[in-house]
Order: sequence, then structure tokens, then C-alpha cells
Amino acid sequence: MPNPGKCKVVLDAMGGDFAPENEILGAIQAEKEDSNLEVWLAGKKDEIEKVLREKNLQFDLSRIIDSEQVVTMNDLPVQAYKEKQGSSLAKGLNFVKNGDADAFVSAGNTGAVMTFSLMIYRKIKGIDRPTIGTLMPCIGGFCTIFDAGASVDSKAHHLAEYAVLGSIYAREMLNKPNPSVGVLSVGEEESKGNEISKKAVQLIKPLGLNFKGNVEGKDILKGNVDVAVCDGFTGNIILKFAEGVTHLLKHLIKEYAEEGFFKKIRVGLFKSSLKSIFSKLNYENYGGVPLLGVNGITIIGHGSSSPLAIKNMIHKAAEAHRKDLISKLTEAVASRNFDHNEGNP
Amino acid sequence: MPNPGKCKVVLDAMGGDFAPENEILGAIQAEKEDSNLEVWLAGKKDEIEKVLREKNLQFDLSRIIDSEQVVTMNDLPVQAYKEKQGSSLAKGLNFVKNGDADAFVSAGNTGAVMTFSLMIYRKIKGIDRPTIGTLMPCIGGFCTIFDAGASVDSKAHHLAEYAVLGSIYAREMLNKPNPSVGVLSVGEEESKGNEISKKAVQLIKPLGLNFKGNVEGKDILKGNVDVAVCDGFTGNIILKFAEGVTHLLKHLIKEYAEEGFFKKIRVGLFKSSLKSIFSKLNYENYGGVPLLGVNGITIIGHGSSSPLAIKNMIHKAAEAHRKDLISKLTEAVASRNFDHNEGNP
Repeated sequence: MPNPGKCKVVLDAMGGDFAPENEILGAIQAEKEDSNLEVWLAGKKDEIEKVLREKNLQFDLSRIIDSEQVVTMNDLPVQAYKEKQGSSLAKGLNFVKNGDADAFVSAGNTGAVMTFSLMIYRKIKGIDRPTIGTLMPCIGGFCTIFDAGASVDSKAHHLAEYAVLGSIYAREMLNKPNPSVGVLSVGEEESKGNEISKKAVQLIKPLGLNFKGNVEGKDILKGNVDVAVCDGFTGNIILKFAEGVTHLLKHLIKEYAEEGFFKKIRVGLFKSSLKSIFSKLNYENYGGVPLLGVNGITIIGHGSSSPLAIKNMIHKAAEAHRKDLISKLTEAVASRNFDHNEGNP
Repeated sequence: MPNPGKCKVVLDAMGGDFAPENEILGAIQAEKEDSNLEVWLAGKKDEIEKVLREKNLQFDLSRIIDSEQVVTMNDLPVQAYKEKQGSSLAKGLNFVKNGDADAFVSAGNTGAVMTFSLMIYRKIKGIDRPTIGTLMPCIGGFCTIFDAGASVDSKAHHLAEYAVLGSIYAREMLNKPNPSVGVLSVGEEESKGNEISKKAVQLIKPLGLNFKGNVEGKDILKGNVDVAVCDGFTGNIILKFAEGVTHLLKHLIKEYAEEGFFKKIRVGLFKSSLKSIFSKLNYENYGGVPLLGVNGITIIGHGSSSPLAIKNMIHKAAEAHRKDLISKLTEAVASRNFDHNEGNP
């Protein structure tokens, strides 16, 4: 990696729902907390400068990668890639690709961030399908689910790729020395599952991972496995379902409080505790999710990312660079032979 | 239906993890609450009599359908059907099939209950794949998910069948006059989804339902749709994931209480409130889930069903009979032409 001094992270300043303000605030905070970090902002220079002026914020203007175009949440990824090479996404990723920075972070259109990263970084040799993970808070820490929506119709050999990429990620970035990996299924027995999951179990077995075979939906939250692999359709539905859990809880608590005076008082007294407990469920606090399988670091955040979330994403990107994550993933993939024939002769 | 007097429900007394005790207690309680209800117990007569003696309970012994065999949780469904025609499952279902009772309830091996019901009742004409629903507590009531695990590799036309069966179930049994139906997917736009879900949307559109197109995981808990259809693999993973939610919450609350004296006190004061709020999340309280698409009423319960859960399941079975659910499902299916070619010419 070409960076002897500070770690340079490019932030897509135009990405999230509250861009560029939350992005700028997160970037400044991240730099404050880590003196060996340098954030570069990819985005419309005039808009960034306007926020800096209005909020009376200090940021080195020479670290703005001026980008005349913006990829919106509604843009179709492939079309955007064709038509928006002047966007903060394209310019920011190319800046990293060319060795001028070490990692890229965006809270923008997930599909577009993925497509641009794939086209600009290219895939790691041996990987057919890059994957996006999601960190699920569970008993004892986190379970990471791959794929959480990068592809909808994953095949069995893709799940095998996710298993290798995911377990290296968990080892390096989540401090699990020997991460356990499971295939998400409908029962623990090997006979249980759909066509893809059953094949995936057979393909993952010989890969030399700490492989637990099938795991069920409940094993995710119980923390019975560090990495759960599944097709991106299933993973995305679980991710979105989990997002709905805090909504439902807040609603149930509100409903309970409305049942009577004393219940209202009781909820009032417990409010700060609830806030603290719920914050652990809010995985947006945990600093974005990795795109794995491409030849460079991209951390993807939720569209509604707060300055805190942006800051955490930047730290995570820097950590991935410092831990030389891409080399470690590349090495792990190179030593495996993924069976693209899905176990068929 | 051949029952002019009381509604007769057959309960599999050998089914659940705490059979036959919880089953007997639930049956007696159900009859106490509904004088027009008569419960029949299918199971080993001596075991049932032993519990009645030991617990000093009153139950009309002539209403025991003596069954020499028991289908266990570990039995493979198809093999059990071949080898255990003397089981409480087979004898109980045949009792209903022959018109001697109106509905069947079991907290036993779900796959076996399904297989036995399918083989003994047979499918409703026009239905290719029966389905098991799951009631998911949500903002404003319940969302029902079909399929929750009856089949793992559902096809698009199965999802169309689930949509019709599920919407009639929601109309009749959940008091939704015009239930909304959605296909579970990874985005609201029609272009989003996997191969099966995208085809399913096209197949469901012409069926004359209150159809909302694609819905996402979060829409389930937000209550944005009354019935969500998906393949049984996805549905089962969500169901099990949801089961894990209360585990995680209890753990987070315990962890919080252990952070210090005052936090412990606070949790202690809020304990009864938490119990009341969590009880709404515990869908085992809601009386089992329906097996739809077969020519008779079967309500399936969780293996760990309490007497309360058993009682609620019996009431639900009686309600389904009184509302003439099977005729209404049969009628709804007869008026539709499911495209078994999956939209292909």
C-alpha cells in the first residue's frame, strides 16, 4: 500500500440523506479523534464550502475532490455508472484506486456504491460475486450476515465465497481469532434447507473454516455463530425485519404507557434505561458495513447516517487499511478453489 | 359439516414437549370456557388416564381415541406416515376426516402434522402446495406470513396460492374485511426481488386481491400489510429470527441491570411492565398457526406449548369450524386459475 504517512480515507460527501452536512461533521470529528487520519471529501466543492461557512467549520479545502455530478438514491446503479463518471462516487473511488488514498466510505445509494466499487476496484481474483455484510447485534456481541443484499439470486458457490470473505473479515475486524461460520437454513440437520443452502454446506465443508454447518434464524440473535451466510434476498429481508424491531418495541411501550397513569409514570422512569438498551440494537451506530470481494476498501453506510455513524465508518475504513484487510482477503481466496460447478460433476 | 350439536375438536394428546399433561390441562380449560365445545383426546389411553388420576382431573374417558403409537419430534414425516398409522396423529385426523369431529389440533412434530394432514385430508382442489402461516405481532395487530416453512423450495405459483389462502384466512379469522397482501422482497419497486418473488408479483396481480405488490422485511413489523407471502425457506428463517428477539432483549436488559446498583433497581421496578410488553411479542400465546390448503382444519402449535397455548389452539380450531373456513377457502380457490407455468407461455 502506497501510504507511508497518514491514513487517507475518501468520504463521499454527497451520499447520505443529510449530505453534505452530516458527512462534513463526521469527517471533522473523525480527524479530531485520530491524528494519523486524513479525510478527503469527494463532492460538489461549492456545496461543501457553503456548509463549512454556514456552520463556521474548519476544513482544509485542498482536500476536496471536486465532483460535478451526484448519484442519487433513485439512480439505477449500472446506468449511473455509465452516465455519472463525474460523480463523487466515481471520482472518490478512482482516487483510491490510483493510490492517492487508502479507503472509501459512502452513505449513498447502496447498489450504486457497490457497482461503482466493483467496476473501479475490480474483483479479487477468484471471487465471482462481491458481498455486503450486515452486523447484527446479538447475545455476546455481533453476528455478521453475508450476503445482506449485494445480489438477490446468489448461487451455492457464492455462499462459499461469502463464507471465506466473511470469516477473514470477522477475524481481522471483529477480533474473533477463529470465527465460526454457519449456513442459514431451516434446521440444523444437513438434510434441511433449500437447494442452494444444502449445496452450499457441501461446498463450504472442505474450505478449512471453523464451519458449523446449518444454523437457524434464532442462532443469529443468540450469537451461536460469528458469520452466517445466505443468499442476498434472505439476508436483506432479515436485515430490514431487524430494522423494524425497535420500531415495534417503541410502539408497544408507548401503547403500554397509554393504558393508564401509573404505567405512564413507570415508562417515564425507565425511559433513559430503554434508550440505553435500544442503542445496542441500533446497528447504524456501529459504523457501516463492508463490501467484500473487491480490490479495495469500501465501507457502506445507511442513507440516514448521523455524523456519529459517518465518523465510525471513517474509523472502520482506516482500521481496515491499517490491518491490510484486502491483502488478507486476497490471500485467503487464493488458497481456495471455489467449485463454480456447484458440486455437479 | 356433519355436526349439528357441539363443535368437536380432536386434540393430539401426545404431540407437544409436555404431552400429555399440558394437552389435558388445555383441553379441560377450553371446555370450561365454551359449553358448546367438546374436545376429544387422541393418544395412549393409559398415559392419559394416569395424568388424570395423578392430577385428580375429570375428563369423559369415552372421548379418548386410543392410539398405540406416537410420532416423535425426531420422526421423519413421510416415514412416520408409512409406519405409524396407529399414532395419535393418524387416528385423530382420520376421526375428523370421517366426519366424527370437526377439527384437529396438535403441538407435535410440525412436518409430520403437515404430512399426515395432507395425506389424510387431501389437498383442496386447485391447490398444489399447502402452507403454514405464522402470526407476527406488529404495530396495530398482526401480520401473517405464508409460507412459514411448509415447503422450502416454493415456486412463484405457490406464492400465488398462499396469497389467496392467506387473505381468506385473514378475512375470516383475523377480522380484516379486506386484507392487504404483499410479496416479501428487497425493495418496493417491481424490478426488485429474486426470480421467484418477481414472478409471483405478476401471478398475484390478476387474482383480484387487495394486492400491494412488493413489501420489505420492515413492513411486517410496521403492520403495513396483513398478509406477506414468501417461499417457506425465507419465511421460516424470519420466524425463527423473530423467536430470537425476546431472548436478545431479555439478555440486554439483564446485562444493563448488571452495570450497577441503580440500574438493577430501575429494571426491578419496570419488571412487571416488561413482562406485559414482552407477552405481546410471544406469539405462542396466540393459539397456534393454521395449515391451509388441505380439506380439513388443522391447527399446529409450538412444541413447547403451555396449557394456555393448547387451550387457545382448541378455541381457534373451533372458530375455524364455526366460520366454515374450509368451504370459504375452497370457494376462493375454485374461482381462481393458478398459472402453474409460472407465467411462461
